[in-house]
This record gives sequence, C-alpha cells and structure tokens, in this order.
Amino acid sequence: MSLFVQKFGGTSVGSVERIEAVAEKVAGFVENGHDIVVVVSAMSGETNRLIGMANEILEHPTPREMDVLVSTGEQVTIALLCMALHKRKIDAKSYTGGQVKILTDDAHTKARIQQIDSESIHSDLKNNHVVVVAGFQGVDENGNITTLGRGGSDTTAVALAAALEADECQIYTDVDGVYTTDPRVCEKAHRMERITFEEMLEMASLGSKVLQIRSVEFAGKYSVPLRVLSSFKEGPGTLISLEESSDMEQPVISGIAFTRDEAKLTIRGVPDIPGVASKVLGPISDANIEVDVIVQNIAADGTTDITFTVQRGEMAKASQILDNTAQELGAREVLSDDKIAKVSIVGVGMRSHAGVASTMFQALAADNINIQLITTSEIKVSVVIDEKYMELAVRSLHSAFGLDQEQDQE
Amino acid sequence: MSLFVQKFGGTSVGSVERIEAVAEKVAGFVENGHDIVVVVSAMSGETNRLIGMANEILEHPTPREMDVLVSTGEQVTIALLCMALHKRKIDAKSYTGGQVKILTDDAHTKARIQQIDSESIHSDLKNNHVVVVAGFQGVDENGNITTLGRGGSDTTAVALAAALEADECQIYTDVDGVYTTDPRVCEKAHRMERITFEEMLEMASLGSKVLQIRSVEFAGKYSVPLRVLSSFKEGPGTLISLEESSDMEQPVISGIAFTRDEAKLTIRGVPDIPGVASKVLGPISDANIEVDVIVQNIAADGTTDITFTVQRGEMAKASQILDNTAQELGAREVLSDDKIAKVSIVGVGMRSHAGVASTMFQALAADNINIQLITTSEIKVSVVIDEKYMELAVRSLHSAFGLDQEQDQE
Repeated sequence: MSLFVQKFGGTSVGSVERIEAVAEKVAGFVENGHDIVVVVSAMSGETNRLIGMANEILEHPTPREMDVLVSTGEQVTIALLCMALHKRKIDAKSYTGGQVKILTDDAHTKARIQQIDSESIHSDLKNNHVVVVAGFQGVDENGNITTLGRGGSDTTAVALAAALEADECQIYTDVDGVYTTDPRVCEKAHRMERITFEEMLEMASLGSKVLQIRSVEFAGKYSVPLRVLSSFKEGPGTLISLEESSDMEQPVISGIAFTRDEAKLTIRGVPDIPGVASKVLGPISDANIEVDVIVQNIAADGTTDITFTVQRGEMAKASQILDNTAQELGAREVLSDDKIAKVSIVGVGMRSHAGVASTMFQALAADNINIQLITTSEIKVSVVIDEKYMELAVRSLHSAFGLDQEQDQE
Repeated sequence: MSLFVQKFGGTSVGSVERIEAVAEKVAGFVENGHDIVVVVSAMSGETNRLIGMANEILEHPTPREMDVLVSTGEQVTIALLCMALHKRKIDAKSYTGGQVKILTDDAHTKARIQQIDSESIHSDLKNNHVVVVAGFQGVDENGNITTLGRGGSDTTAVALAAALEADECQIYTDVDGVYTTDPRVCEKAHRMERITFEEMLEMASLGSKVLQIRSVEFAGKYSVPLRVLSSFKEGPGTLISLEESSDMEQPVISGIAFTRDEAKLTIRGVPDIPGVASKVLGPISDANIEVDVIVQNIAADGTTDITFTVQRGEMAKASQILDNTAQELGAREVLSDDKIAKVSIVGVGMRSHAGVASTMFQALAADNINIQLITTSEIKVSVVIDEKYMELAVRSLHSAFGLDQEQDQE
C-alpha cells in the first residue's frame, strides 16, 4: 500500500465526462488499497474565461483580486471531482489551498509556497478518504488568497507529496511520458522509462514542455519521485528521480532537446578589456530580457566579439539596446539573426563518457550542418545552427547516440 | 456621513457591464463621503450553471461539496467588482464569507449565521476602503465552506449591517420598491414610501417576492433599517423599518397580497373528538408537506369537516395521504380543489381600526365573489376564493381600502 499524490491538469478535467474519467482512475487505485491525494487544475478554458472578464474591466487587474478571481477555477473542479468519487461510493473531501492550508508569501499571481499544514489531510487519509486539493493556490499569512502562477498545480502536487512524504507524485498529462525527443520531429523517438531530475531540468528548459520547471526543481530538492503519465491511456509513464537507471544498456545520452524560440545577436569589435561583457549584457538584463547562450570570442587586435541568444520576440528590443551600446563602446557592428535553432544533447552518462561532444560534432558535420555557437554544461551540449537544419540535426543526433533502438518499452 | 451596506443581486451584477454600473453607483456614494460595504450575489445564471454541472454527476450532490462549488459564484463577482472600483480610483478590497469571517452552523446548503467578525472590515473602512463581501456564504467552525441557501445574499447584507451597526441596509433589486400590490394585476398599485417589518413579512410570505423572508425577520430582530431600491433607476425605494409612517393620512391597509400557488383539501365527516385535527394533519406534516390555512367547521351530528391548503404541486401527494386517513377514521369523503387563490389585506393600521374585515367582505360581495375560507392574524385578513376572481378581488380591495389614490410619490 502506497501513498500517491496524483495531479490532473486542465485538459484531464476539461469537462464533466473527463472529471468522471479521473474519478474512475482514482477509484482503481483506491480499490488496490492505495492512499490517494488528488491535485486538480481548473477545467481547461476556465482560467482564460475568468481572465477575459477581468481584462474587460482593466488591462492590468489588481493582483490580489486576480487571485480571488482565478482561484475559483480549481475550487469548481475539486467539488465536482469529489461528487464524482462519491458517485463511486468513495469517501472524498475537497480542500481549497487556503483550507489545507498551503501557506505562501504574498506575491500575488506568482506566490511561492512556504509551508504546508498536512495534519488534516493525514487524518482524512487515516479515515480512508481520498483527499482532493485545489492546485495552483494558497493563502498568505493574512488569509489573502494567492496563486502560484500558471502551471502552479504541478508545484502544489510536488509540495504536497514532499509534505506528506508520499511514495510518488504522479503528474497526469496528455502525453504518456517523457520522450527521447519530440516524436513529431523524429519518428524513432520513444518514451524513456526513467530520467534524473537534472536531465529533466535540462530537457524542460530546452523545450520539452511536459512539466513545469519549478515543480521539477522542487521535486529534486525534496527527492520526491515524480512520474509523468497519461490521463487518457494506461502505461507506466516516465519516472523522474534522483537515481540513474541501473540498466547496463543505458545510453550515454538520454534525450535530444531543441528550440526554435531564440534569436542570436552579435556585437563585433568591442574593446577587449575587463568588464566589457557586463557593459554589453548589463543594459539587456536591465530591460528584463533574458539571455540564454553567451559566447565571447578570443580577442584579436585588442577587440573581441560577443554573441548571445534571447527569446525571439525580444530580438528587436535587444538589438536596439545593443546599437546604443555599440555607439558608446565604439564597436564595429551589431548583427542579429532570428533564423536559428538550438539543439542539445542531454544525459548524466556524459559525465563518465569522454568524446560525447565530438560524436555530436561529427554527426552534424556528416550532414553538412554548420555549427554557429557551442555551449556546454555538465550534462548537456548545445549547439546553435541554422533553423532550416533543425529537424535533420535532431534525427541525426537521435541516431548517432543510439536512441533509435526501441528499448525500455513494455 | 453614513455607513451603508448595499446588496446587489444576480441580475444587477449579471455581466461585466452591469458590474461596472454597480461600481459607478457605489462610487457616487463614496464621493458623497459615505462608508460603503457592498454585498454581491453570483452573476445571474452562474449558480444554475454550476448546479447543472453537479447534477450531471449526481442527482443529489453532497451538500458539503455543493457549497464548495456554488460559493465560487460570488467569489468571481467580488473580484470583478473590486477591479471595477479600482478602475474608478476607489480603494476596494474583497472578502469571501470565510475571510470576513461569517461563522455559520454546519448545515450545508442552508446554514444559519452565528457570528460575524467585523474587525477587519472596520479597519478597512477606517482606511477609506470600500469593502466588497461575497453574499450567501460563510464558514463553519471547522473551516468548511457553507452557504445560506438561495437568496441568502440578502441575509448576509442584513447580518453585516447589524454587526457593523450600519445606518441602513440597502437591497438593490430590479424593482424600485415595494408596491401596494402587483402592478401587473392592478394598474393603480403604487410604491410604498415605507412599511413595517411585520407588514413586509406578511406581504413577502403571501407572495410579493421582493425580499427574502429570512432577511426581513433578521432585520426586524436587530432593528436594521432596510431599504429596497432599484439597481437600474434612481429613486428612494421603500424603507422597511420598525416604526409606522407618521403620516396622518396613512391608510389602514398598506397592501394587498395574493397567491395562486395553493390548493385546497377537505376531509368531510370525521368524528368530532379531541385529537382528530392532529390525526388528519400529522401524516401530512410527516410527509414534509407544508400546510398554510387550516379551518375546522363547527361539528354537526358528531362529525366535522377539516379544510386546509397546501402548495399546489403537493396536492396529489396530500390527497393520497388524506384518502388513507379518511379510511382509518371512517370519514365521509375527501375533496380537493386546485382552482383557488388566496387574497390578503395587510396593514398594522388594522390593529386600531375595527371593521376592516367587514369592509373586505362587503367589497367582495359587491362583486359577487364567494369566499371559501377565511383566516385572520393581527395585521392580516386572508380569504380563499375561486381563482378566476383573483384579479377582480385584488382590484376591488385596492380600491375599497383607498389605495388607489396616488400618494407618497415624489
């Protein structure tokens, strides 16, 4: 008998029929003797409907009242799910974030969880109740309703799993697990049996949008085993945990991530003096533009080039700022390019295997794909390439690192 | 400078535009230096939408979860109204029932208010905030969300007005006050300037559905002056208070109430022995059928007749029960009639004026309207008549008691 925290997102509870299906799934776990805490989001479309009404009134509605408004979305779902469980003769009790209580700071619309009072949940579980908790919401120390920001239901689930010392936190989504890469790009992609928190963080931040990054960090920090699985079909999903797979056949690289959302900016011929990088990037960051890859060339003739990538939508703004900087520093020119893609290989196996980067470069070279930028971390190598080669690069790398073989499938 | 509690019902906040109009109205009071606490209902249609979803799952959803579900309706409105006030540069803060807190018993879906903690509202008012409270809802001592039952927002408003010692509790509706009778039946009906709690109770329970009976009782008990006025047009409305009008010209009868919702049942020839009334009516009440008028004839030949009225929809059920009783008691026959109407004259002036009932009977006789049953209380005389004469009876009485003159109009 295990204690599972199960999170169902907006699509999984998007209609009364879907809510009944979730109840059916939960009922199956209860019949097998498990203790279940369910965390649910608002029914899909509901949060947008509420925000739409607020925006009819004000372009930037007051954050405190915004939280009062949107938190009703999950409150509707918890009540309906409990009713659907009652219909199946399962004792169930709903809790809003404030009722649990999930104490947060007072940063409305993006609050952070500070503490969870799990006492009444424990007591309900002891009485064989399924506990249904509204995701995404909490309450500050003055009793004001707060929300954790979009996707915060994942964070609620992980935080509850940590507080309750659950055996597993199961995130039900519309995919059946985490894949070696996007199957729409590479048809040989397959579901991973397991992956580490670190790898998942690199995969998520690089564009595999299965899970909220924050919830993965949270799960890693409190060592809560996290499982991603499908709301709609049966299957073991993908387990995200501290340990690497003990499988001897585990490949060095776990997955290939990619994104087309970035643009590249280069400032050429800036003086090669201490502090020049901060002179270039300081104004960018002051404008709240997030910078991803940063590369500085080796200096020649007392000048150097600095290249970095930003979100594609912010290229124009960043380019303007860079023009000013170029004038101040007497730089030669500013270049920008939004026809790029970033492709990354991710895997904890990389730590103990030499030559991974070189395998990557060879594979890309074999397909005549020119590498524009390279950046590496302990468990990741990313390259920036012309976006038209992105799909080809992903497929080449998927094959080069032996991910094409069907494995870990049951 | 006065403190007003203002309640706006579902129709008054039925759309974002309507909510903006309410904010505009509240802003006018704030500009005039008044302290304002606003109580709002769910946007019209919202409660039914929520109940509809619940009923898709269960015919009789769990009361606790029903309260969690429907209480979201008012929560949406308080947030939107605060935003609309912020747009008008008015500081405003929303409170759910639980946040106020409005402590109730744990009778989910029909809870009764036990206590109101008005401390934080007072402190917000002192800081020149408009306070916006979700009507209809509260919280029990274990923190469970409760609701007061349909129309409970009026009760919330009155209870808050009592707790805050407000100068007036203003109920905004889609009518501009309480009328001497329904203007659709008698075109000479006119708005009353004022009316006593007692009269309002008799009018309300007899079918003038302007206010929740419970909120009028509550207001009377705590002497909270209650004013009914229109959300949509300007005007003083009708003040409901303890005192009678000081106007010397005040008519003896304040208004004419009527209902077509009842049916009449008669059991003939039951033994005229002690306890027979309870033998007849006990089983009816055991079946949760509410009985209104009860009349027992003078006995003849050792038997008597008992006649009573019930809600029209329950006539068939009551008739069946009465058939069984008739068999047990050896009664002669059971008669039922759903083609009846009850017409009542109401007025505190009745206490000090003799001959009111006789004026009533004469007026009806003059129009050849036969009276089937008569029942009286201190400030009311009701008659049951054939329903086809109802409109005629109302108009005759309105005229006979001098209500046709236009008075108290400004």
